[in-house]
Order: sequence, then structure tokens, then C-alpha cells
Amino acid sequence: MAYEFTVTRQVEFSDTDMAGIVHFTAFLRYMEAAEHAFFRSLGLSIHTVVPEPLGWPRVHVDCDFRYPLRFEDTVEIRLLVREKREKSLVYSFLFRKLNEDSPREVARGSLVVACVKRDADGRMKGVPIPTSIADKIQAAPAELLAS
Amino acid sequence: MAYEFTVTRQVEFSDTDMAGIVHFTAFLRYMEAAEHAFFRSLGLSIHTVVPEPLGWPRVHVDCDFRYPLRFEDTVEIRLLVREKREKSLVYSFLFRKLNEDSPREVARGSLVVACVKRDADGRMKGVPIPTSIADKIQAAPAELLAS
Amino acid sequence: MAYEFTVTRQVEFSDTDMAGIVHFTAFLRYMEAAEHAFFRSLGLSIHTVVPEPLGWPRVHVDCDFRYPLRFEDTVEIRLLVREKREKSLVYSFLFRKLNEDSPREVARGSLVVACVKRDADGRMKGVPIPTSIADKIQAAPAELLAS
Amino acid sequence: MAYEFTVTRQVEFSDTDMAGIVHFTAFLRYMEAAEHAFFRSLGLSIHTVVPEPLGWPRVHVDCDFRYPLRFEDTVEIRLLVREKREKSLVYSFLFRKLNEDSPREVARGSLVVACVKRDADGRMKGVPIPTSIADKIQAAPAELLAS
Repeated sequence: MAYEFTVTRQVEFSDTDMAGIVHFTAFLRYMEAAEHAFFRSLGLSIHTVVPEPLGWPRVHVDCDFRYPLRFEDTVEIRLLVREKREKSLVYSFLFRKLNEDSPREVARGSLVVACVKRDADGRMKGVPIPTSIADKIQAAPAELLAS
Repeated sequence: MAYEFTVTRQVEFSDTDMAGIVHFTAFLRYMEAAEHAFFRSLGLSIHTVVPEPLGWPRVHVDCDFRYPLRFEDTVEIRLLVREKREKSLVYSFLFRKLNEDSPREVARGSLVVACVKRDADGRMKGVPIPTSIADKIQAAPAELLAS
Repeated sequence: MAYEFTVTRQVEFSDTDMAGIVHFTAFLRYMEAAEHAFFRSLGLSIHTVVPEPLGWPRVHVDCDFRYPLRFEDTVEIRLLVREKREKSLVYSFLFRKLNEDSPREVARGSLVVACVKRDADGRMKGVPIPTSIADKIQAAPAELLAS
Repeated sequence: MAYEFTVTRQVEFSDTDMAGIVHFTAFLRYMEAAEHAFFRSLGLSIHTVVPEPLGWPRVHVDCDFRYPLRFEDTVEIRLLVREKREKSLVYSFLFRKLNEDSPREVARGSLVVACVKRDADGRMKGVPIPTSIADKIQAAPAELLAS
């Protein structure tokens, strides 16, 4: 059972805005990409159609921005599972800029995603996380979450 | 039968990049938004599921950029139907910046979109444009296209 | 002195993702666009270079998503000034989908933005909001914020 | 002197749209990211401020889309330098989807970028490509470009 995952990426030009720094919405895309890579690391995909179409809409997001990221910066995004609920997952994210003398925390945030089934009209309904997924994920130890 | 449509929009902060100007991909989003507004102006939607799901994937795009756009600029996008083919449409776009003493051409481009049907697996197959759509659209007169 | 502003926009195709709904980061772009329109409504711009370059980096964002938005939905974004601090502003946002029998709340969120000055190296330093801006903005009455 | 570069990336969720496929503008972002990685492979950066601020605005882009990309597909983007002019560079791009039995061409396109200097007002003026850059880049052999 896994509770953490770390990805590293390099800031792309299209992530920046006219203030010369990474647009705040890019941090949230980075979170989501880390979540999806976490699923792949478990042999899963966030996009499942068999045995039935499941989705993981975001129900909450928050992020605190402490230091800007710039073009070509290398950023590490560390995901921790904060909570595993019956029908949703709560993730924490810590962003660190690596291309300095020592890693520097630039942002931290969280994401709550719900497990849903879609009916033929595309309507979504919360459902328990299938055991094939839930059995692979657990909440991180309290001491990790406290840091 | 319609062959032209004009929309005006204001450059948003998230359209810009660290060069202080509108990112080139935003021009292409503006093209697409103008195409969709053109469809709405005809009582249509680019997203049709009845009587069957139709899609309009892009098969070609090109754009020449002559002058930059900046945050809060007002830009006019004029769409012309260049060609109506059996299974695709060819559009031309002219971009003009309006917030100067006189309108200034900033870019021009074109888009070719194919009419497709999706099967159950999401696979797309080119189909003739339904008459309910084709009957509302025609190619612009040659003299307009020459300008 | 103003404390609220409302904008309405239509969901664009490029705002959607493969789940068939608006990507969660688009809600945050909508927030930011509403903030900038609020500034324009006061004769201001978020992008000021005279008498000196000011910026408004985001220091916090959060959003709760209650109901999905889809392509061509009409969404109203209502901004309220929650707090006016010496060097930052706190905004609340309420999103309502208008193209139904009655408006439906789809999301709510908040944004904290800091007023900064940039030095020659692009480094940002928090500064008091200039009176030319601060004098035009006030916190909304408590009863509005409570709703 | 280099004339080619290849990058591989995985399609992210936020690259997709409600048609279930990668939005066409993402291909153009992929092109740009490949161009920047090409510069880095030569010890350069597209973003240069010393000895003076240079920029590389796009003056032309085109792309032909032959086959859709989907979430989590692995795509290879191969850049070729088609032409080295005094003040601009012309690139060709070939996109191949790798996660199938055999690589499949999905798109090809080109990009023309101009070398510019910015004055204090942000105005851009075409300038000869500095030799420190031009000496590292050459046009690809004709037989490669013909394929």
C-alpha cells in the first residue's frame, strides 16, 4: 500500500505569464499530473472504463504560494495521501525548487477528489472507491503529514 | 446561408507569457472560439449528440503573426468560410487589434475541420456534413477571400 | 468605494477536458479574470507600470467544486472583497450556472493577492497598496460575506 | 553544429478536451517545448538576458493533424532545423505515437521564429542571430527534410 509519490518537472515557457513567473494555475496542473503519475506507479490509471467508467472529479483544491517559479526551473512535487475515505481521497502536495544551492519550498497545497460513476447522460454519482484501487492506497503516517 | 462572423474579445492575463505578450497558442484558441460562436449564430452547436454524436476535429491549422497582442488589448477576430467541402470546412481568420487610433492587423490564419462520427470506441470516421448544417453555410465570395 | 463585481462568461471548448466537463483550473482562471475586470471597473489595471511597476502575485487560492460546468454553459462569477489589508486583498468568489430554470451554485472559492514592487532583477517585495488603489476598494458588509 | 533533436513526453489530462483527445493547441505547445529543449541541448536558453535581452517570437506556425492523441499516450516529437536565415529559424516537427505495436505518425508541422531585441518599452526589433547561437545550429541535410 502506497502513500507517497514524487515527480520532478521543468517549467515550460507556456507555464509562465507576463509577470515573468509561473502562472498560479500551473501549480494546480502540476498537482494533478503528480496524482495521475501516482496512480500509474500503482499500475492504475485515473481514467478507467473497465469494468465501468469511473471518474475522479476534483471537489476541493487549495494552494499557498510562497516563492515564484520561473522558466526552466526544476520543480519537485511530492504527493502524500492525507486521508483515504470511502468515496474520496485527500492529497497533500509540497513543491520544492531544486535548481538552487539547496532545495527551496515554493508552494504547498491539497486536493480532494471524489470517486464517481457516470450514467449514460454523463451525470456523476459518488461511489465507494473500488477495492482494486483502495487496497493499493493508504494514508501517510501522521508524522509525515505533520511536517 | 452564412459565410462570415466577427467576434471581439479582450486579452486575459492567463493568455500572456513571460515575453509580456499573448502566447501564440492563444490566437488558435481564439480562432476556435470564433468558429464555435459562428455555429451558435446559426442556431447550431459544434457539439452535437442528437441524432448522433458528431465531432469536428482539426485537420490543419496555420497562423502568421505580424504584431504582438498584450494584456487587456481588444482584439477582433473575423471568420470567413473559405471552402465548403463534402466532409470538411475551411475557415480563414483575420485578427485586428482595436485599441489603437486605427485598427491594426496583428495576425491571420486558417483552420480546416473535418466532420466525423464516433463509434462506441471513440474512433472517428469522416462523414458528409449533415444537410441541417451544410444548408446554413456557404463559401465567402471570392473578392472577400482575396483581401 | 467598491466591494463587489459580477461577470458572466460562456464556457469555451478549450476549457473542457476528456471528462466532458470544465477543467478545475479554468474556474481559477475565471476568478482571476473577474478580479481584473473588477479593477478595470474602478478605472484601474492590475498591470501598472507608472509611477512604478506593481504586481499582484497570488499567495493563496482555494475552491470548492459542487457541480460541473459544461461546454457553452453560461456562468456568472461574483466577486466580493472579503478583506482589505495593508499589503494584500482577500476576495471571495461565487460561481453560478445561469442556463437552467433557476441559477445553480456550482462552485465557490477565494483568492489572496499581495501587492508587490519589482526590483531590476524581477525580485518581488510586498508593499502597501497605493492609496490611489486602496481608496477605491473596501471590504464587503459582513452580511454579504456570511451568505 | 546541430540540426535535430527528439523529445518524448506523455499526454497529460489537462492536454485533453471534451472530445476525449488532445486539444490541437497542445501539439503546438509540444513543438515549442521541443524547440526550447533543443536550445538547452546546445547549452543555450531561448530566454537570454545577457549581454542583452533577446526574444524569439513566433512569426508562423502550421500543423497537420492525422491521428488523435489520447490521455497517457507517449508521443515523440522530432525537431529538424529546416532553414537557418540571418534573423530567423525554420523548424519542422514530426509527431509519432509510441505506445502501439509500431510507432504511428500523428501530426507534422513547422514553426518560424524570429530573433528580436527588445527596447525599454518592450518593442521588438528583428536582429541577426548572434554568432554564439548561429554557430551551433545548421540546417538539416536535404534528404532528411524530404522524408
